[in-house]
Amino acid sequence: MTPLAENSGSAIVAAVIGLGSMGMGMASSMKRAGLDVVGYDITPAAVDRFVAEGGRGAASPADAAKGADIIVSVVVNGAQTEAVLFGSKGVAAPMKRGAVFISSATMDPAIARDLAARAQALGLHYLDAPISGGAARAAKGELTIMASGSRQAFDRARPALDAMAGKVYELGEAAGTGAAFKMINQLLAGVHIAAACEAITFAAKQGLDLDKVYEVITASAGNSWMFENRVPHVLAGDYTPASSIEIFVKDLGIVLDMARSQRYPAPLAAAALQMYLAAAGAGMGGDDDSSLARLYAQLSGAQLPGFAKEPQGR
Amino acid sequence: MTPLAENSGSAIVAAVIGLGSMGMGMASSMKRAGLDVVGYDITPAAVDRFVAEGGRGAASPADAAKGADIIVSVVVNGAQTEAVLFGSKGVAAPMKRGAVFISSATMDPAIARDLAARAQALGLHYLDAPISGGAARAAKGELTIMASGSRQAFDRARPALDAMAGKVYELGEAAGTGAAFKMINQLLAGVHIAAACEAITFAAKQGLDLDKVYEVITASAGNSWMFENRVPHVLAGDYTPASSIEIFVKDLGIVLDMARSQRYPAPLAAAALQMYLAAAGAGMGGDDDSSLARLYAQLSGAQLPGFAKEPQGR
Repeated sequence: MTPLAENSGSAIVAAVIGLGSMGMGMASSMKRAGLDVVGYDITPAAVDRFVAEGGRGAASPADAAKGADIIVSVVVNGAQTEAVLFGSKGVAAPMKRGAVFISSATMDPAIARDLAARAQALGLHYLDAPISGGAARAAKGELTIMASGSRQAFDRARPALDAMAGKVYELGEAAGTGAAFKMINQLLAGVHIAAACEAITFAAKQGLDLDKVYEVITASAGNSWMFENRVPHVLAGDYTPASSIEIFVKDLGIVLDMARSQRYPAPLAAAALQMYLAAAGAGMGGDDDSSLARLYAQLSGAQLPGFAKEPQGR
Repeated sequence: MTPLAENSGSAIVAAVIGLGSMGMGMASSMKRAGLDVVGYDITPAAVDRFVAEGGRGAASPADAAKGADIIVSVVVNGAQTEAVLFGSKGVAAPMKRGAVFISSATMDPAIARDLAARAQALGLHYLDAPISGGAARAAKGELTIMASGSRQAFDRARPALDAMAGKVYELGEAAGTGAAFKMINQLLAGVHIAAACEAITFAAKQGLDLDKVYEVITASAGNSWMFENRVPHVLAGDYTPASSIEIFVKDLGIVLDMARSQRYPAPLAAAALQMYLAAAGAGMGGDDDSSLARLYAQLSGAQLPGFAKEPQGR
């Protein structure tokens, strides 16, 4: 088990729950900015890594929360966030009254509103603050944060936000608004990755020069941020996960759950989700989300770079 | 009927067949560049407009083609292009042997290959040269042209290409390659407009501040060229056609015909086409392609700017 180091004294204390590729970078950014950072992860090895880099480790969310001014929760979804807050070793009971809980997981805005109301009823501040930008920008303290919450929640969170983000969008007082903005972004991102993979593999099916396709499209009206960012993975035949297929199984699943409950038809998001499901079902769930291109190739016989070497996913 | 003005002598003669918003701009750009330009359109009023602006008018494609060194065909699709070439008043018979036919319509690459082969069998040069960029850039001579054809076809077309385009992609010798690149772009453009409209109306359904959504998304990974370009139409509630719903009924139709014949599944393009069809069926076919947002609003009860004033399309 990881030893609990001593609190170093007068610095603002920030606890990070979840030391994955995003959380580790966010914790490091706060440490660099002079905060006293304590980290917890369900995987002890992740805590050990953080301690080896000079951070303090904790044995549970509750342990991490003791004495913390700011708690940053960087877990996978709303259910895990609920467990971090209100589970048997959750942070809500030991947190200092008046401290702020910053929730970074992507989730249904209705869940964010519920968690915020329950935290606020205990005298805690809650900032609904989904993140965007990927692990590299997390490590550099250059994330984009889409945040909503009370003025006090923003004020108390400010040292952490300043340390973690290049840009903080302040989207109003109501919890749920940050989450809703994130879901709009994820709808578009998920559809655009699928469209990029559908298009570049369609180009391959016709025997076009794919490097030239990339050059022309990125200079044309068909371009998207995701086409520009993900198609190079396909051209390199490298499906090492930067962000995985399963992320969009999750996020487009949330979009479509929201849409269904609101009686909002979303056929583009629905078609994209089916492709992520098929890629996951075909064994590529942990691979890079650009693996949709390999799926299209499998379904059509198109030849992609590196594809013949690895036809069945990993 | 429009009078046939005299050829002014030694200048390179270019005939433009199709004086719509794109063709008119391309004809004007060539005139500015010093070419002797003769124009024809199936609508006599369009020819009259061109003559009023100092161009020469023609009474048929065949008339326009007589003595022309370069013929630029700017019609709607492959069938119209075939009629321009080989119809009873088509250009192929009267064209000078060795002159070049520049085909700008969006079409199935297989049709482009067929037309090129038939033209070449008559001793004509054929440049497969779809255009991108819209009417404003056509008028300024700043189009993007995705072109393929023989070296001689490029050489003979050069004065026209230089006058009409800001950027010419030279994509090889084979007719059909230019058309194929254009279809890849149209697949992405059509899906991205539908995704933009699905997302911005989903944001409206949740009562988000849509100007703020535009600000956040255009700075995030969910951005696309089309989101950035078309969502302002939705925010302004202005569906005056810059490019119409029917354009993507046509272009995604071509994409899906190609995909079907090649046994290539394209579920994103297919879902998008259904939305364009629904918008056209609901009476918005001639309106701006961002009218998909109005369709999503009709189907979900979301409130868009200006939408309450005009709930049924026009």
